[in-house]
Amino acid sequence: MTRQQLVEQIFKKRSYLCIGLDTDITKIPKHLLSEPDPVFTFNKAIIDATKDLCVAYKINTAFYEALGVKGWEAMEKTVRYIGNEHFKIADAKRGDIGNTSDQYAKAFFETLPFDAITVAPYMGKDSVEPFLNYDGKWAIVLGLTSNKGANDFEFQKLVREDTRHGVDEFLYVKVLKTATNWGTLENLMFVIGATQVDEFSDIRKLTPHHFYLVPGVGAQGGSLKEISEKAMIRDCGLLVNVSRAIIYASEKEDFAEEAKAIAEQFQHEMKDYLPEKNIFQLGCVYEIFNTAGGIITIMDFTEKSTPRIGTILESMAGHRWKITGIDMPKHIETTNFKFKPRFSDYIFGCILQPINHSEILKENEVLQVL
Amino acid sequence: MTRQQLVEQIFKKRSYLCIGLDTDITKIPKHLLSEPDPVFTFNKAIIDATKDLCVAYKINTAFYEALGVKGWEAMEKTVRYIGNEHFKIADAKRGDIGNTSDQYAKAFFETLPFDAITVAPYMGKDSVEPFLNYDGKWAIVLGLTSNKGANDFEFQKLVREDTRHGVDEFLYVKVLKTATNWGTLENLMFVIGATQVDEFSDIRKLTPHHFYLVPGVGAQGGSLKEISEKAMIRDCGLLVNVSRAIIYASEKEDFAEEAKAIAEQFQHEMKDYLPEKNIFQLGCVYEIFNTAGGIITIMDFTEKSTPRIGTILESMAGHRWKITGIDMPKHIETTNFKFKPRFSDYIFGCILQPINHSEILKENEVLQVL
Repeated sequence: MTRQQLVEQIFKKRSYLCIGLDTDITKIPKHLLSEPDPVFTFNKAIIDATKDLCVAYKINTAFYEALGVKGWEAMEKTVRYIGNEHFKIADAKRGDIGNTSDQYAKAFFETLPFDAITVAPYMGKDSVEPFLNYDGKWAIVLGLTSNKGANDFEFQKLVREDTRHGVDEFLYVKVLKTATNWGTLENLMFVIGATQVDEFSDIRKLTPHHFYLVPGVGAQGGSLKEISEKAMIRDCGLLVNVSRAIIYASEKEDFAEEAKAIAEQFQHEMKDYLPEKNIFQLGCVYEIFNTAGGIITIMDFTEKSTPRIGTILESMAGHRWKITGIDMPKHIETTNFKFKPRFSDYIFGCILQPINHSEILKENEVLQVL
Repeated sequence: MTRQQLVEQIFKKRSYLCIGLDTDITKIPKHLLSEPDPVFTFNKAIIDATKDLCVAYKINTAFYEALGVKGWEAMEKTVRYIGNEHFKIADAKRGDIGNTSDQYAKAFFETLPFDAITVAPYMGKDSVEPFLNYDGKWAIVLGLTSNKGANDFEFQKLVREDTRHGVDEFLYVKVLKTATNWGTLENLMFVIGATQVDEFSDIRKLTPHHFYLVPGVGAQGGSLKEISEKAMIRDCGLLVNVSRAIIYASEKEDFAEEAKAIAEQFQHEMKDYLPEKNIFQLGCVYEIFNTAGGIITIMDFTEKSTPRIGTILESMAGHRWKITGIDMPKHIETTNFKFKPRFSDYIFGCILQPINHSEILKENEVLQVL
């Protein structure tokens, strides 16, 4: 699932809820245990009841592996049952040397139809890269996790490389900064725990355009309101996961209805935090001006990541512009343009042709600065 | 498998070889593909051919997961086929919040009969602890890995807590120091990549009594000789893993014999690096002296870990001593003794009674300083 498809689902359902299927056979209603596959039966009922309220399901692989081959079967049936309307996350925390991560990517992106997998960053770039080589598939790299153990290493301060400038930074900040260069805004997300609410504003400044998968709301106590206030961006940029508070809402036969009721509470809260309209826009479009050849949009990506401009401008362009040419991401010589970029010289150019626009610009006239 | 059992296997076979079953269905001999379960058939042949030459098998879970349910079945059959004479490692690089790591521990230690699992440390203590709650089972925590990506974070320098003393230390050093406090010498090992040979001496000083799982010999190019010279301790303390160089020694029908031939080369080299005799001894026994009640052995554990003294002294004691009383690990008031501990005041006392010893000590006479 591409970023655009995910964002469309979010604004269509007015929900950025991800439901975590941490299905523990010892916690599901007892009447299901006589079923041939109790875990899948439980998941199916939860999915049927909640599918209109959430945009993603997160399967926590540990709970399935604990059951051995039968668990792996239940996981496979579940991910296939979810279908293509939802973003399907394997919460697997994988990561190993390159030839091994290749196999994990194959396991979750080819053998199983997941859209994304959570990845542990400790072993560095070559352990994460294999997950970034699939169109429409995502690596969700652990940034700052929701658990107490985050203090052990993630919050350790690193020696700064430049001893005269800057401040010491936490390991997790280094992870965010470094991993940002490995992937794009369309294949890399970060896990940021909801319990780390004090850090959310700084994290958003550091990675202004990335999607976050946010666990820790619900049983772990993170605040949906605070997270949304501090980290929501114009195309949402958040998937907030709730697992236990939804799927174990009731131990009785009404478990699916109760799960739906709790999911509804979250969705109702979320719809108010979402922007009215999907302003699908990554980076900051800060100059649209006319040239002899058409309209050129200049986008500023201080993160130096390399989004595919054709995709990211499509929604914006669809309304008023036709994309007639795309400059490949590159360091553009600013002297090629008749203005001086104001924020950064890492920019991308995109030639647009007006389709249905009342205003015809004269050459070199600036249309708007967003 | 306990440390003592593992060490007994090592000295019996004069081998500390671990064979990595990274079984890739695209790389195994073509004639096996017509078998109902080609991966298990391959593994079975490799195990039959090499079992006398190695003390451990390491199953790389990624290669099995890539095949989905069938792969998980092949993994289960393989680990059960290996049996109880070998140390069985799930190279799974797991680790998640506590309630999820609980499930991974269940998956590999209860549902499947592995002795150990590799664990990623990024999420800290509560992500590793669930693997330490099983008698005779081990967590093998990633310390310094063999891949290029180790430079991204593992080799990042941390700000030292005491600004006046000490030197900046690498993240991986912090991981070793911190994780040492989570487990004991009998349930915690570290992964130290064979390609990191420059660091081996320092790592051994830092964790003088822990076992290491050392991948990276063979296809990745690490030197068995250098590792053994720098990191072997008196009860060996090393499991050196070789995967591809052994299991893919031949693509033909003779693959198992060729695998055996390569495994033999490694075992022949290893037998010369091993000490002649298993001096089964953890920590440093530095005073054995007589009292009215018997012989007291004082052991120095500067690591402050809490080995079970009954077990660790059993081998040593079996020859000459009978253990008649054990002081629980504790901070012993040194004034209780008639000497001043020389290295550390974290010591353990163990009352022994001489069984078959020619020398009868007088009270307070020092028998030996090892």
